[in-house]
Amino acid sequence: MDITMPKKFFHLLVFNLMLTQIVLTGNVLIWPTDGSHWLNIKVILEELNRRNHNVTVLASSETIFINSSPDSPVNFEVIPVSYKKSNIDSFIEHMIMLWIHHRPTPLTLWAFYKELGKLQETFFRINIQICDGVLNNPELMARLQKGGFDVLLADPVTICGDLVALKLGIPFMYTLRFSPASTVERHCGKIPAPASYVPAALSELTDQMTFSERVKNTISYPLQDYIFQSYWGEWNSYYSKVLGRPTTLCETMGKAEIWLIRTYWDFEFPRPYLPNFEFVGGLHCKPAKPLPKVLWRYKGKEPATLGANTRLYDWIPQNDLLGHPKARAFITHGGTNGIYEAIYHGVPMVGVPMFADQPDNIAHMKAKGAAVEVNINTMTSADLLSALTTVINEPSYKENAMRLSRIHHDQPVKPLDRAVFWIEFVMRHKGAKHLRPAAHNLTWYQYHSLDVIGFLLACVATAIFLVTKCCLFSYRQFVKTGKKKKRE
Amino acid sequence: MDITMPKKFFHLLVFNLMLTQIVLTGNVLIWPTDGSHWLNIKVILEELNRRNHNVTVLASSETIFINSSPDSPVNFEVIPVSYKKSNIDSFIEHMIMLWIHHRPTPLTLWAFYKELGKLQETFFRINIQICDGVLNNPELMARLQKGGFDVLLADPVTICGDLVALKLGIPFMYTLRFSPASTVERHCGKIPAPASYVPAALSELTDQMTFSERVKNTISYPLQDYIFQSYWGEWNSYYSKVLGRPTTLCETMGKAEIWLIRTYWDFEFPRPYLPNFEFVGGLHCKPAKPLPKVLWRYKGKEPATLGANTRLYDWIPQNDLLGHPKARAFITHGGTNGIYEAIYHGVPMVGVPMFADQPDNIAHMKAKGAAVEVNINTMTSADLLSALTTVINEPSYKENAMRLSRIHHDQPVKPLDRAVFWIEFVMRHKGAKHLRPAAHNLTWYQYHSLDVIGFLLACVATAIFLVTKCCLFSYRQFVKTGKKKKRE
Repeated sequence: MDITMPKKFFHLLVFNLMLTQIVLTGNVLIWPTDGSHWLNIKVILEELNRRNHNVTVLASSETIFINSSPDSPVNFEVIPVSYKKSNIDSFIEHMIMLWIHHRPTPLTLWAFYKELGKLQETFFRINIQICDGVLNNPELMARLQKGGFDVLLADPVTICGDLVALKLGIPFMYTLRFSPASTVERHCGKIPAPASYVPAALSELTDQMTFSERVKNTISYPLQDYIFQSYWGEWNSYYSKVLGRPTTLCETMGKAEIWLIRTYWDFEFPRPYLPNFEFVGGLHCKPAKPLPKVLWRYKGKEPATLGANTRLYDWIPQNDLLGHPKARAFITHGGTNGIYEAIYHGVPMVGVPMFADQPDNIAHMKAKGAAVEVNINTMTSADLLSALTTVINEPSYKENAMRLSRIHHDQPVKPLDRAVFWIEFVMRHKGAKHLRPAAHNLTWYQYHSLDVIGFLLACVATAIFLVTKCCLFSYRQFVKTGKKKKRE
Repeated sequence: MDITMPKKFFHLLVFNLMLTQIVLTGNVLIWPTDGSHWLNIKVILEELNRRNHNVTVLASSETIFINSSPDSPVNFEVIPVSYKKSNIDSFIEHMIMLWIHHRPTPLTLWAFYKELGKLQETFFRINIQICDGVLNNPELMARLQKGGFDVLLADPVTICGDLVALKLGIPFMYTLRFSPASTVERHCGKIPAPASYVPAALSELTDQMTFSERVKNTISYPLQDYIFQSYWGEWNSYYSKVLGRPTTLCETMGKAEIWLIRTYWDFEFPRPYLPNFEFVGGLHCKPAKPLPKVLWRYKGKEPATLGANTRLYDWIPQNDLLGHPKARAFITHGGTNGIYEAIYHGVPMVGVPMFADQPDNIAHMKAKGAAVEVNINTMTSADLLSALTTVINEPSYKENAMRLSRIHHDQPVKPLDRAVFWIEFVMRHKGAKHLRPAAHNLTWYQYHSLDVIGFLLACVATAIFLVTKCCLFSYRQFVKTGKKKKRE
C-alpha cells in the first residue's frame, strides 16, 4: 500500500463541514467534580470557550483543584459551604488508605464495604452541603435562571447537577469515568453488561475469564448493586423532596441526554453500549511540547543517595514528558488521565495502583500487554527495578503501547471534538431524545421480560395440566368401558 | 443562541486531519448482492475510487442491477454460473408474492415460513453456484490471490464472501440492512437484543410495546432463530468442507471485522450495540440537483384518465425529485434506500409496503410520526387519497419528517465518510480486533452464564441440604437425649 493524500480530500472535508457543522454559540453550565476529575472537564470548557460558547462553572467555596485562572474567560458561580478544604483532603486520604488496607478481594470484600460505607456517610454530608448551597439559595438560583443556559454538563460523582438542570428546565448530560460495578450506567443509564465477558468495575478482571472468575464476576454485580443502592436511600428522599414527587436518584440520572464516558476501545474491553453513550477517553491529551533534559518531579527532601543522572523538579508537565522521544517507561499510580497520556504517546507502564479505578486501569493495561504491575503494599526497590527493566527491555511492551497509541489516534473524530460535538448537539436540539432507549419506560421485571416469561410458563403449565387431565379422563373412560364389556 | 462560525474551526480541523487521517491507497474486493442492495454498495465503491483505492467487484455472469459503466475505473471479475437472469427475476417475484399472500402475522406465520423454506431452497441452489464459481475455480482464485487485496467488503445476503476472504487470507467486513429477527447480528455478531424493547425484525413492532406485543416479540426471536438456523444446515456442511475443518456459517460470519449497518438513529429505535457495529444509514443520499417540472415515472401504457397536471417519464432520479422544494409527500413501497432519501430531504411518506423489511420500515416511520401506511392488498384509490391528504395537510407529518432530517444531517461524520473510514481502518491495521467482543470465544451457555448460574444454584442447594441435615440430626439428638432423660 502506498501512502498518499488524495487531491479532493480537503474539498470534501470542507464541504462536509459547511453542510453539517454549523456551530451555535450558547451558554453552558458546568457541574464539576474536584481533584483529577477537574483536569478533564477543564479541557472541555476551554474548547467550548474557543468555540465562542459562554461557560459558567458552579463550584463550592472550598475546592482543591477547581479554580479560575486570571486570564480565563470562564465565569465562576461560588456555592457557599461550611466544610473546609482540609475535609476534602482528609476524605481523599481516607479513601486511599481504605484501598491500601482493604483492597477488595473475595476475602476482604466485607471489611472493604463496611469501611466504604463510613466514607459514604462523610461524602453524603459534604455533597449535601453543595446541593443545599444551590437549591436552597434563591439568589443563586435566580441568577442561574437569568443566565439562559442551554445545557448543563455534570460530573455525576458530585451528586445534584441533574437536579439543578431540572430546576432550571434545561437538558443535562454527564461526563463519567465509571461507577462501581457500573451500577449507575447499568441501572440508571440502561447499558447492558453480560456478566460472562464484561468485567464488573473494581473486580480487576478482564474480558477473558476462567470459570471461577466468571463466578466471581457474576456475584460482583448484584453484590455491588445492593451495596450502592443501599447508599442511595438518603439521596432518593432528598431528590423526592426537591422535585416534590416520589422519585429516585437513579430515575433522575436516567434523564441524562448523553453519557460521555472517559475511556475508549484502546483501553476498554469491547462491550455492548447504547447510542447515547459516547466513549471520549483521552480527550485531554495533546502533542507534547519540547523538554530540555531528563527530569524528576519530587516535592520532599532531596535524598542523599540521589544519582548524578537524576534531577528533581517541583512540577513538570507530565504530557510533555511522556511525549519526549526518550521517554522509555512510565511509573504511574494508574489514574485514567495519566494512563491516557501514556497511551497517546505509546509509552509502556509500570503500574503501582492505589485506589478507586486505578487497580482496574492497570489490570486493563496488563491484559493489553502494555504494563507490569507492582504491589504498593509489598514492593521493594528490586521489584520496581525488575518491573522497569521488563517493560523497557522486552519489546512486546513498547509494541503493545504503540498499538494502543495507533488505535487511539485513528478515530473518525478526535475524542475532544466528539465530546464538544454532542454538547453542541444537545444545545442545538434541546436534547438528544432520539438516542434514548425505551428501556427507561420499563420496570425492572418488564425490562428482563420476567412478566412475559411467567405468563408463557403459566400457559405451558396450563396446557400440560389440561392434556394430562384429558389423557387421564380418556384412560378412565377406556378402563370403565373395558370393565363393562367384561361384565357383559 | 447566535449562529456564528468560530474563527479557529478550519485550522483545528485541518490539524486533526494531518494527525489522524493519513489515507492509504489499497485494493478493495467487493462481494455484492444484486437488486437494490447494489445501489448502496455502488456509492461506497465510487467513494473508494475517488479516494484512489483500486476496487474490484466479484459478481456472477447473470446480474440484474450490477454492471460496470463504461467510464468507471472499477474492475469486474465475472463468476460463471449456469442459472439465468430470469431465475433471479422469478425468485424476487416469488418473494414479493409470498409477502402479499402470507404477510407474517401470528395467524399466517406457519404458512409464511413453509413457503419461505421453499424459496430458501431455490436461493441455496442459486447462491451455491456463485460460491462454487469462485472457490472451485483455480484460475479465478489465483488471479484474486495475485490482486494483493487488503480487505473484502461483503453484503452477506449473498453468502460466501467471508469464505473467499478467508481463502485469500485477508480481513473482511459486512454491509447489512438486517437479517430476520436479527438472527445473524445476534448469533454471529453477538449484538444483544433485549426482547422487552428491541422489536424483532419482520415483527412490525416498535420499541413501545404492550404486554401482548412483548409476548409476541419474545416468541418471535427463538421462533425465527430456529427457522433460520434450520436453513443453515447445508451451509454449515459447505463451509466445513471448504475450510477443511468442522465449522458453521455463523462462526465464520462472526469473524467480520466491522458490520456496517445501513440504518441510523433517525430510523432505528435506540438499542444496544457493539463497538464493531457502525450505523451508516443513508450513505447513498446527497443534495438534490434541480428538476424542471412535475413528474411521474411510469413504464406501462398511458392511462386514458391521466390528468393534465401529470407527466409520465420512463425513469427519473428519485433523490432529485425528493429534494425538490415542491415535493410534498412520497408514496413508497418502503425500501430502505427510498426511505432514507425521504428522511434526508425531510419528506413525509405514504407507505405501501410489499416485502422483506418494507413493512418494518414503514412501521418505524409510522412510529416516528412521518408516515401513513396503506395496505397493498385491500387499498382503494380513496384510501390512497386519504393517506396522501393526511400526510400533506396534517402539519405533524412534515414536522416529524423534518426532525428526522435534522437528526440525519447532524452527525459528527457523514455516513458515507464513516463507512469508508472503517474500510480504510481495516486496510491500515489489517483488521479491527480491538473492537471484537470476547463473547465470540464463549459457548452459548457460557455467554448466558448458565454454567455459572447452575453452579451457584447447586451451591445453594447443597448448603440448604447440609443445613437441613444438621438441623434434623441435632433435633433427633435432642429428642433422643430427652427420651433417655425421661427413662432415667
